[in-house]
Amino acid sequence: MHHLLSQRSREQRGSRIRELLKLTERPDMLSLAGGLPAADRFPSEIITDAFERAMLHRGPTGPQALQYAPTEGVGMLRERLAAEADCSVDSTLITTGSQQGLDLLARVLCDPGDVVITEDPSYLGALQAFRFAGARVVGVPGDSDGLDTEALATLLAGGARPKFVYVCSNFGNPTGATLSSARRRHVLDLAERYGFLVVEDDPYGALRFAGQAPQSMFAPGRPVVRLRSASKVLAPGLRVGWMTGPATIVTAAGLAKQATDLHTSSLNQLIVMEAFADPRFADHVTSNAAVYAERAGALSAALRRSFGDRVEFTEPQGGMFIWARLLSIDTSALLESALDGGVAFVPGSAFAVEDESDHTDRLRLSFATLTPTLLQAAAERLARAAAVTLV
Amino acid sequence: MHHLLSQRSREQRGSRIRELLKLTERPDMLSLAGGLPAADRFPSEIITDAFERAMLHRGPTGPQALQYAPTEGVGMLRERLAAEADCSVDSTLITTGSQQGLDLLARVLCDPGDVVITEDPSYLGALQAFRFAGARVVGVPGDSDGLDTEALATLLAGGARPKFVYVCSNFGNPTGATLSSARRRHVLDLAERYGFLVVEDDPYGALRFAGQAPQSMFAPGRPVVRLRSASKVLAPGLRVGWMTGPATIVTAAGLAKQATDLHTSSLNQLIVMEAFADPRFADHVTSNAAVYAERAGALSAALRRSFGDRVEFTEPQGGMFIWARLLSIDTSALLESALDGGVAFVPGSAFAVEDESDHTDRLRLSFATLTPTLLQAAAERLARAAAVTLV
Repeated sequence: MHHLLSQRSREQRGSRIRELLKLTERPDMLSLAGGLPAADRFPSEIITDAFERAMLHRGPTGPQALQYAPTEGVGMLRERLAAEADCSVDSTLITTGSQQGLDLLARVLCDPGDVVITEDPSYLGALQAFRFAGARVVGVPGDSDGLDTEALATLLAGGARPKFVYVCSNFGNPTGATLSSARRRHVLDLAERYGFLVVEDDPYGALRFAGQAPQSMFAPGRPVVRLRSASKVLAPGLRVGWMTGPATIVTAAGLAKQATDLHTSSLNQLIVMEAFADPRFADHVTSNAAVYAERAGALSAALRRSFGDRVEFTEPQGGMFIWARLLSIDTSALLESALDGGVAFVPGSAFAVEDESDHTDRLRLSFATLTPTLLQAAAERLARAAAVTLV
Repeated sequence: MHHLLSQRSREQRGSRIRELLKLTERPDMLSLAGGLPAADRFPSEIITDAFERAMLHRGPTGPQALQYAPTEGVGMLRERLAAEADCSVDSTLITTGSQQGLDLLARVLCDPGDVVITEDPSYLGALQAFRFAGARVVGVPGDSDGLDTEALATLLAGGARPKFVYVCSNFGNPTGATLSSARRRHVLDLAERYGFLVVEDDPYGALRFAGQAPQSMFAPGRPVVRLRSASKVLAPGLRVGWMTGPATIVTAAGLAKQATDLHTSSLNQLIVMEAFADPRFADHVTSNAAVYAERAGALSAALRRSFGDRVEFTEPQGGMFIWARLLSIDTSALLESALDGGVAFVPGSAFAVEDESDHTDRLRLSFATLTPTLLQAAAERLARAAAVTLV
């Protein structure tokens, strides 16, 4: 049981978040804590129609939606995603959510003790997957332009030799930051120079409502694996993601996947394929982004109204999160009174890579799940809790 | 990339099977190779109706089928499965097929070099999962009563200290054998005495069409984890399985699952829950078993007609496989002429745990996917190929 014990810290952190998420189920709770898409924005009709069409596909071994599928993914979906990414089918693997992509990459690339570099703070699920594979995760600071590539360059010049550098490229979790075009080029230069892989996680890119999207770092021939997901544009309950990357690495991940879950649900792959082909899908994504824009604006305004100059954050241009700083407040201490007061969030220290005493004045606020009126109420509850915490 | 290289043998074997499965897609091929449920036996109506009901479940964060779910599984399904197994909810974890259960158990229980014992021959996917976690897999021979527990006792008395013993309890893959009641008691005694866990894999138990089912080894308080699956009774394309076992181990597997794929598809969990509650489900399972019985009988008779006393096998009482021995034939050599002659099977050596020169006169024949007439034709093609191979 050595594995279990050595990962106690990771598990405790995971458990704490899970305990927290349980509290948010209280019916009176206004939750800014989840990383969940808006409850009222699921395209149920598109998915129901996609199900009906998915059930019509027949192969030599019966209804394709119900039968076993190839480990790498249902052929038609894989071809579509490869074409969209302008890469070969061999470079494309369907995964059980992009979380599985993180797990598979860590397992095929890392031996115990190998170094992986991420922005600090970082997505908890990524940290869990990397550590579970035995990787030593090293954090690099970031700002509103994403991971600080000068700090990365210094680390590399000092001798760090990561197996890969993990970057959430668009509207990262938890910071909401997008890696700038200049920094993307810098990361690619460093990857070529030092011989590491870039893992570009991009679940939120389609949730852009302002500004220009920088180009993805992925292109055939580059040392980049890009992870994408249907979770934020369709439904996370489907657990369908995909990766594109160098064929050797994607093939290795596919072999690992075979041992892990044989393949991703054939039914859900066909639902995603049919939903992506639905003429209403583009409209759904556009109107989704518009709703998220309204909510981001509402939460931003409400935070400024409730906290004045005691709050700092970058106005979001997409995604689901505001990574706010509350001046002179320990947000872990704030959480308890906030929950008492009927509002939930995730304290910044939960996303710390190196040291849980980092990011203690930060909190991750999701604007995705509440209406503008409720976001205003949530900000007011948060301000009342902060007032109590200050006293 | 050390991981990849050290697992080359495993991967080559996996690749060979995958190459083989590609050949079986030729339209004129009669395939006895797959481990697939019958193409014409999927309960599409039950699943379509279950989908419609699944989409009606609402939680505080929207349609439950589409939203994120707890890692351990959708509450209502988990409770139902726990009640059925007469254990606590804490002892029950929903997995992305039972393949994921094998992977999670290997990862939380084994450090590199730890020993896992399985019957030899064994299910390829289990071997892949155990080896991918770094386990050293040791084989124990079996017969028509399943794993030879006297041989296991000898191994243990000689000093072997496995983290767990893996047993496919009912109609095992590839042998089709069911572990007898006496041997089940013996395994449990040995587990208590030597302090190892028993992993009881049981995907085929519901496909019984003759004889009496021995009791499952799992019961609360025993060192047994039982893996089950909706793949053979509903549809493998859903990728829904579950494990029941000691709460400490199931909890550890749940924490590992969080890093692996966050949770199993909420939609598919609700489809399985609704399908299990459908009054037509029991009839579906019964009539499925009847069809499999007819096909097992047809293949058995066809083999005897085509091979006479040159073939040996135990008449199946359930499951999907006949594990036949062809006297004085190397079935790996036979495969090529069989494929030329339009019939596919998996040669015995593919399932060897210790040494690929074992089981070379065996072949795994699935009777599930073909009608009696086609099974007869397949046996005739096989006999023609064997005649050529002998010359």
